[in-house]
Amino acid sequence: MEGEMKQTGVVLLNSSASPFGNRVRIALARKGVAYEEKQENLPAKSPLLLSSNPVLAQVPVLIVDGKPVCESLAILEFIDEAYAGVGEPLLPPADDPFARARARFWAAYIDAKVPECAVKVWRSPAGAAGSAAVEEGSKGLVAVLRTLEAELGGRRYFGGEALGYVDVVLVPFMTPWFLTYERFGGLSVAEECPALAAWAARCASENTCVAASLSDAEAVYQFVCSLRKYLGLDG
Amino acid sequence: MEGEMKQTGVVLLNSSASPFGNRVRIALARKGVAYEEKQENLPAKSPLLLSSNPVLAQVPVLIVDGKPVCESLAILEFIDEAYAGVGEPLLPPADDPFARARARFWAAYIDAKVPECAVKVWRSPAGAAGSAAVEEGSKGLVAVLRTLEAELGGRRYFGGEALGYVDVVLVPFMTPWFLTYERFGGLSVAEECPALAAWAARCASENTCVAASLSDAEAVYQFVCSLRKYLGLDG
Repeated sequence: MEGEMKQTGVVLLNSSASPFGNRVRIALARKGVAYEEKQENLPAKSPLLLSSNPVLAQVPVLIVDGKPVCESLAILEFIDEAYAGVGEPLLPPADDPFARARARFWAAYIDAKVPECAVKVWRSPAGAAGSAAVEEGSKGLVAVLRTLEAELGGRRYFGGEALGYVDVVLVPFMTPWFLTYERFGGLSVAEECPALAAWAARCASENTCVAASLSDAEAVYQFVCSLRKYLGLDG
Repeated sequence: MEGEMKQTGVVLLNSSASPFGNRVRIALARKGVAYEEKQENLPAKSPLLLSSNPVLAQVPVLIVDGKPVCESLAILEFIDEAYAGVGEPLLPPADDPFARARARFWAAYIDAKVPECAVKVWRSPAGAAGSAAVEEGSKGLVAVLRTLEAELGGRRYFGGEALGYVDVVLVPFMTPWFLTYERFGGLSVAEECPALAAWAARCASENTCVAASLSDAEAVYQFVCSLRKYLGLDG
C-alpha cells in the first residue's frame, strides 16, 4: 500500500480471556517466537484490529512484519509453516497425511461444538428460560467432552506421546473455564470427564508453553461476569 | 484391527446434492485420482458410513486403502498432501505461508457463514415465520456473497490466475444452488453479485474438474423439495 511503513516483528492482538488467543500464545511459546501482545477491548476495538481483520473484527490476529493472519486455526497452521525450522511442529509430519487429516478433523469438531455449548452455559439470560438453556448447554458440553475423551483413549496426548495440534486447540477451553462452567452451569468437568481433566492438567504440568499461556480461571470468571453485565444479562 | 481386510483403492461416500461432497469430487478430478463414488441416503445411512465417520455420520468421507478421512476441508488438505506429486496443488505453495493462511481464513469464513444463511433460505417452515427466516437468510447470504465478491476483487480466481483452494470451497454453493435460492428465496445471485456469478461460471467453463463435479441445479432443487417433505416442512 502506498506510504505503508515496513514493520518488523510479531504482534498478537488478543483479549486475555480468549481461548482462541490462548491457542496462539501456546504455539508461539512452543516455537520460542518473541512477540508483543496488545490487548483488545470488546466495546472499543482498536483501529489496528479493524484494519487487520476488517471482515470479522475479532481477536486473535497475528501480525508478522506488518502482515496480518486471522482465525486461530489458520494462525496455528501458519506458525507451523512459517517457523517450520524452529522447534517441534504441532501437526503430525508431512509424510503422514492421514494423521494430519485426523488432527484437522478433531480441531474442526472442537470449533463446531465446544464454543456453542460453552456459550449456552455462561451467556444465557437469568431466569427460567435461561436455566433451560444452561442445562442444554451443560448436557451438550458433557456429551462433546466425552466424545473427545473417547478419542483420547489411553494416550497421553491426542497425537500420542507429546503435545500437538488437537491438544493446543482444546486445552484453552478446559482448565481456564472450569470455574466458569461450574459457577454458571453447576458442571464439574473433573467429575464428568476425569480422564480428560487429567489430560488438561498434564498439558500444563508437562509443557511450560501451555502453563505460561493459559488464562487464569478466576480472571476468566470475572471477565464473563463483566461481559454478562455489558450484554444486559445481569442487573 | 484384528481380522481387518486390507482394502486398496479410493472410495468417496457422498450424497449427490452435497456441496461439501462436490468439493472433494473437484479436488480428486483435478489430481486425476480414480475413485468409486457410493451414494449415501440420509434416512438410511450405510454401515460403511457409520463405521467410517462414527462421530458425525456425515458425508463426504474419503476412504483411501481402507482408511477414512472425514470433513470436507480436512479432505481437501489431505488430497493436496497425499497426492503432492500429482498435478497442481490447491493451496498456495509452502514457501508462502501468508497466502496459505489467507486461503484457510476464507475457507473458514465460507463454512461459518454460507451454509447457515443458505439453509435459512431453503429449509424454513412454510408460513409467516418461515417467510421472515427466508428473508433473513437471503439478506445474510447476499451480505456474505458481497464480502466474498470484494475479496475476489478484479482477480480471475481467489488465489490469482488459476483455480485454487477458496474457489473449490465456494463454487459448490454457487451455480448448483442458484435455482434453489431463487425458487425459495426469490434471490438472484446473478443480479445481486454479478462479478461473483461470473467467477462461478468461469470456474466451470475453464476447468473440466469443476464442470464434471458440480451437482445439477434442477437435481439439487428436487433434492431440496424431497428433503423438505421428509422434514415435514411441506404438506
